[in-house]
Amino acid sequence: MKKLKWGMIGGGEGSQIGPAHRLGAQADGLFALTAAALDVNPEKGREYAQRLGCAADRAYGDWTEMLAGERGRDDRVDLVTVATPNSTHFEITKAFLEAGFNVLCEKPMTMTVEEGEEIVRVARASGRICAVNYCYSAYPMVREMRHMVASGQIGKVRLVITNFSHGHHGNAADADNPRVRWRYDPAMAGISGQFADCGIHALHMASFITGDEVRSLSADFASTIDSRTLEDDAMVNFRMEGGTVGRLWTSSVAIGRQHGFDIQVFGETGGMRWASEQPNQVYYTPVGGRTQIMEKGESGLSDEATRLSRVAIAHPEGFPLAVANIYVDLAAAIAGENRAALPSAADGLRSMAAVHAAVDSAGRGGVWVDARPTMFR
Amino acid sequence: MKKLKWGMIGGGEGSQIGPAHRLGAQADGLFALTAAALDVNPEKGREYAQRLGCAADRAYGDWTEMLAGERGRDDRVDLVTVATPNSTHFEITKAFLEAGFNVLCEKPMTMTVEEGEEIVRVARASGRICAVNYCYSAYPMVREMRHMVASGQIGKVRLVITNFSHGHHGNAADADNPRVRWRYDPAMAGISGQFADCGIHALHMASFITGDEVRSLSADFASTIDSRTLEDDAMVNFRMEGGTVGRLWTSSVAIGRQHGFDIQVFGETGGMRWASEQPNQVYYTPVGGRTQIMEKGESGLSDEATRLSRVAIAHPEGFPLAVANIYVDLAAAIAGENRAALPSAADGLRSMAAVHAAVDSAGRGGVWVDARPTMFR
Amino acid sequence: MKKLKWGMIGGGEGSQIGPAHRLGAQADGLFALTAAALDVNPEKGREYAQRLGCAADRAYGDWTEMLAGERGRDDRVDLVTVATPNSTHFEITKAFLEAGFNVLCEKPMTMTVEEGEEIVRVARASGRICAVNYCYSAYPMVREMRHMVASGQIGKVRLVITNFSHGHHGNAADADNPRVRWRYDPAMAGISGQFADCGIHALHMASFITGDEVRSLSADFASTIDSRTLEDDAMVNFRMEGGTVGRLWTSSVAIGRQHGFDIQVFGETGGMRWASEQPNQVYYTPVGGRTQIMEKGESGLSDEATRLSRVAIAHPEGFPLAVANIYVDLAAAIAGENRAALPSAADGLRSMAAVHAAVDSAGRGGVWVDARPTMFR
Amino acid sequence: MKKLKWGMIGGGEGSQIGPAHRLGAQADGLFALTAAALDVNPEKGREYAQRLGCAADRAYGDWTEMLAGERGRDDRVDLVTVATPNSTHFEITKAFLEAGFNVLCEKPMTMTVEEGEEIVRVARASGRICAVNYCYSAYPMVREMRHMVASGQIGKVRLVITNFSHGHHGNAADADNPRVRWRYDPAMAGISGQFADCGIHALHMASFITGDEVRSLSADFASTIDSRTLEDDAMVNFRMEGGTVGRLWTSSVAIGRQHGFDIQVFGETGGMRWASEQPNQVYYTPVGGRTQIMEKGESGLSDEATRLSRVAIAHPEGFPLAVANIYVDLAAAIAGENRAALPSAADGLRSMAAVHAAVDSAGRGGVWVDARPTMFR
Repeated sequence: MKKLKWGMIGGGEGSQIGPAHRLGAQADGLFALTAAALDVNPEKGREYAQRLGCAADRAYGDWTEMLAGERGRDDRVDLVTVATPNSTHFEITKAFLEAGFNVLCEKPMTMTVEEGEEIVRVARASGRICAVNYCYSAYPMVREMRHMVASGQIGKVRLVITNFSHGHHGNAADADNPRVRWRYDPAMAGISGQFADCGIHALHMASFITGDEVRSLSADFASTIDSRTLEDDAMVNFRMEGGTVGRLWTSSVAIGRQHGFDIQVFGETGGMRWASEQPNQVYYTPVGGRTQIMEKGESGLSDEATRLSRVAIAHPEGFPLAVANIYVDLAAAIAGENRAALPSAADGLRSMAAVHAAVDSAGRGGVWVDARPTMFR
Repeated sequence: MKKLKWGMIGGGEGSQIGPAHRLGAQADGLFALTAAALDVNPEKGREYAQRLGCAADRAYGDWTEMLAGERGRDDRVDLVTVATPNSTHFEITKAFLEAGFNVLCEKPMTMTVEEGEEIVRVARASGRICAVNYCYSAYPMVREMRHMVASGQIGKVRLVITNFSHGHHGNAADADNPRVRWRYDPAMAGISGQFADCGIHALHMASFITGDEVRSLSADFASTIDSRTLEDDAMVNFRMEGGTVGRLWTSSVAIGRQHGFDIQVFGETGGMRWASEQPNQVYYTPVGGRTQIMEKGESGLSDEATRLSRVAIAHPEGFPLAVANIYVDLAAAIAGENRAALPSAADGLRSMAAVHAAVDSAGRGGVWVDARPTMFR
Repeated sequence: MKKLKWGMIGGGEGSQIGPAHRLGAQADGLFALTAAALDVNPEKGREYAQRLGCAADRAYGDWTEMLAGERGRDDRVDLVTVATPNSTHFEITKAFLEAGFNVLCEKPMTMTVEEGEEIVRVARASGRICAVNYCYSAYPMVREMRHMVASGQIGKVRLVITNFSHGHHGNAADADNPRVRWRYDPAMAGISGQFADCGIHALHMASFITGDEVRSLSADFASTIDSRTLEDDAMVNFRMEGGTVGRLWTSSVAIGRQHGFDIQVFGETGGMRWASEQPNQVYYTPVGGRTQIMEKGESGLSDEATRLSRVAIAHPEGFPLAVANIYVDLAAAIAGENRAALPSAADGLRSMAAVHAAVDSAGRGGVWVDARPTMFR
Repeated sequence: MKKLKWGMIGGGEGSQIGPAHRLGAQADGLFALTAAALDVNPEKGREYAQRLGCAADRAYGDWTEMLAGERGRDDRVDLVTVATPNSTHFEITKAFLEAGFNVLCEKPMTMTVEEGEEIVRVARASGRICAVNYCYSAYPMVREMRHMVASGQIGKVRLVITNFSHGHHGNAADADNPRVRWRYDPAMAGISGQFADCGIHALHMASFITGDEVRSLSADFASTIDSRTLEDDAMVNFRMEGGTVGRLWTSSVAIGRQHGFDIQVFGETGGMRWASEQPNQVYYTPVGGRTQIMEKGESGLSDEATRLSRVAIAHPEGFPLAVANIYVDLAAAIAGENRAALPSAADGLRSMAAVHAAVDSAGRGGVWVDARPTMFR
């Protein structure tokens, strides 16, 4: 098994997202970090890249340097991960796709709908993989839920309820802390705060599990701390193409909630729920029957869930292995296999369209608006 | 201790609500069932009333008979509980209040806002107690949450999130079952289905715990089963007088949820949550600190929580004792004590105004509407 | 329905157990408190009994007075509850049985095996009911578990694991508090501390659910606080007549456990568990299948579980209603119905034999000893 | 950062333990698989090793070949993991230690106490690292518990209660399945079944968290399925050197339990509990206070817990990352740093002594026996 060559942009020393990608790419021995531009400070980035095993000539000072260096090589990296600040995702992803690289982009893929549409076009034209890191979708039991819907085990889906709410930005005394503040400042975060940060994970999950897309939505935004411009709490009601009713709550001021991402899916013949803090179980209830606790690794699960589980039942697998599953699927896709479940540029675009729709709706008293990107209408 | 004389209307043999009231009124030995008109079938009602201990001349065939019989007695009942079908609450409650009886009315108190305003006026004029059975508010730990807000333990309340969702009406094959069907038929249930049935419990709780009232709301209703006219799923966003943001989801098609009434309250300096299926705990988190599990019966709780708890810590107390706590407070109120926490006719009216506002909003695409009764604006 | 006349001895104002019995006897309107000797202080007892509704001539100063007063009456009480300090249970229970009264005795029924055998003989001779308040056995879902074993739903029972551990006596600084201290002082508590206090509930439950009896046991006792003579922590391994292996842990120094009584029963074809702090659910797993959450009040439960449940599914019912179920069964038994599930004097005797066996075993390094009362060998 | 060269023996394709080690060694990019003898079938082992990235000349057919090949190289592997069938651990581990390799051995380290003592002597003489894979001890929150005890946060430890019970061998119809059967056959498993398989993890954990060692024990073993010779259920009571009372239950017939390893530690001033199926939380209760939920990644944890956590609070980390933490500590130890928390050959020996003691005690009716290896008495 020859390891794939992996390049990383952003995610430098001390970042939160960097370790998750490195664990994810390396855990299964599928990727070897080969080229990197890790830090906004070129020297620190070069030094850290070499410490992580990159050769000196592939430890780059910034992404433009890396693009220039890699595009000319015969042994260029097989995949580039973009984990830079949000506002730079668009131009980096676009440039690497155009140069013929496969890309895994952190969410949000872009800051505007127009940029998102551009990425979708560029990705199509390039024939390269452009994936977006909606990694929660790669938990085995989330894949199982998607399989259960697709195979009709809960009937037509009537209702999706999802929450992604935490309380880590709930301390007003801490609101001016730069690590918190930028998220609620339009100059840095764009048009949306909490919904663009966490809400889109939940919205993607609703589509991912149901196999359906959001058509329209109505939003209610709130900024509960005076100094904030953007929302730190949002409720979004939505309708999917197939008629499913959706409800999504996201908050960063829900003090006492840690990382409370959960989803409930209710169909004609059953319901199920999953929570990211206990990701190895699904609670499934057939209509008229008892709730059953499904376990990652139990016999009889779908091939997809079984394939992405690594250790025996009831040995918990956590967030870094969900990210690893994204890389497992990327390795297969790079090898030419079909991996339809990989979150794509189209998913990234849909998220951005939903963000814009939600901001629009919330600003106009919750009117229902079309949530689809123009190019998908 | 002389027991109070208690009269009951509705709640006959086989009803769901009857046993809860009888357990509630009798558990503490405060009330003795003395007069009753229990059943729509006069003979069955008389027979059952006598079986439950009423004298033959106070085992009435219907409420008009009971009103006529009791109003003239020197030893008339001290309290009348109205647990009849919803559409009859108004006229019975009104008649007994006007005749000078204290009344505990099941929810919803009335079918219209106008009727609700009438009950408030009649109750005021009569000087009698008119309570509404929002019994969840009488759990010791719910009283504790109210105390915590009032005493500033979580600071100004920013956010209330509450759900009252179950799946017991989720089976389409069962939708024509008369026990289910009437709830979604305007001819029998009025203008709202699930929101009027369960949602108003949650809305009352939001006000009860925060000590604030709902000012405006925006609603999204759905009927997920074709044969239904009224909503079986609803989301209501609201704002309270003091600026608190509220979000309420209620559903009867959430297959797998049993009786999932829960509430989360997030303030400037802390958050807390409570769930009706595990009513003896509150999860409380001070900002920046760890979540603490508070237990009914622990030392250091408020007088109110301590007063309404009957057995030692970690001996669970359930729904019937919450109803019993309503009767405990009624007995005290009848004796002239102040029991401000008892849900009142004003609460019943506010619920009805919210139901009408939600129906109005949902019918007009979720526009924000005033949720207050005219007489309280 | 004529209420039964109820007499109570002990359980005076401020006691922990008194309220549970009063709620239990009154909740369903089956019993009316008619005679009482509530307090070690005769005046306080008489006064409180009258406050609770007893006529002055049946508000007694002590139990001998009550026995003298009641035995001569035509309208004597139908049932006497004995809720006095443990060391007095024997003589009071014996005296009332001999005088022809039905008795519900708090646990432990006696302080010695010999006394227990005497009660069994007296009860048999009298033809009266002698029940012991192992009230946990009256939760609907515990009755369901018993039914499941009896009807073969988990096959032959291999293993019973039960714990009854709390931490309320874990504070060494509080060890001399008289409310705590007496339990570990042989002069007041007899030969066993925690095992006799809580362990016998768990041991009774093992027998109750499996329908089998303990034959032999091996015990390990510990006193973790220096000033204590009797054990505050105990492990008892046992074997039942049918070969089932049992393991029972009980502790009062398990700081952080509130009232952690739980039981797991594992058979050839399934396993199940129940916990007293969440008494309305049973987790049941058929061999090779998924765990199912069974709910009090769900359709399809046994008649026994359904009969003892009062409010709809997922409306929790707690400890006081379990006690009430004991009284429901007592009322039926007094009326001549067969209530085999009612804990009996034989159960009280078996507990005492087990306590003595455990003390014997623990004192001899854990040797296996016969745990059966001589009269049942 | 130069990767360490890693060798693996056993854990071939399709094994359960192999993936956990590969994920563990690779996740952090610290080790590169360089040499391997993976399979009992030499050809399959060589082929798989090359597929996993070993050079052809270091893809060995068996461990003797690997020892011969590696010992002569200048670039010999820095660490050898032994994940072969239990009965071979001793000779392989001994041989590699004697040849100067660092070894990580799967548990149980040996089959007899004498072998264990030999490994301890050889490891000491070699000056090499000999670690045993008690990987549960490397969860961040388990390290935190150890820190809490060491720093006096719960006072002197009175009591340790630990369970490691599952139901995966509970199906009698499956008892002759070779994957299950060998565990209960002395010819293959040695003198103990379930206690040697899972119980020793729990016993190690008790020592690890308390920083104390087991001195004596009393055991009760049961074989609940007729065809089994060795125990499938065991209870072990123990005493630690410092007087702590311990109780350990382990079972493989507890149908419905998945992988139920949990531990509760009760001290003079607090208690805490942790469960392997939810490994990112500790429930901590200070005496007289409320239970607090501690979260992996929260601020204020010990350096040790913080160092071994990779992603942000409430992003769950699971079993493979606990194994990875063992490798993180091994890498540091190989680099000469002190890693006292790494499970050592002495721990492996103590486990084996406890297994022999438990078998001895159980065979003699539960008598208390010394559980210490002779060389540590």
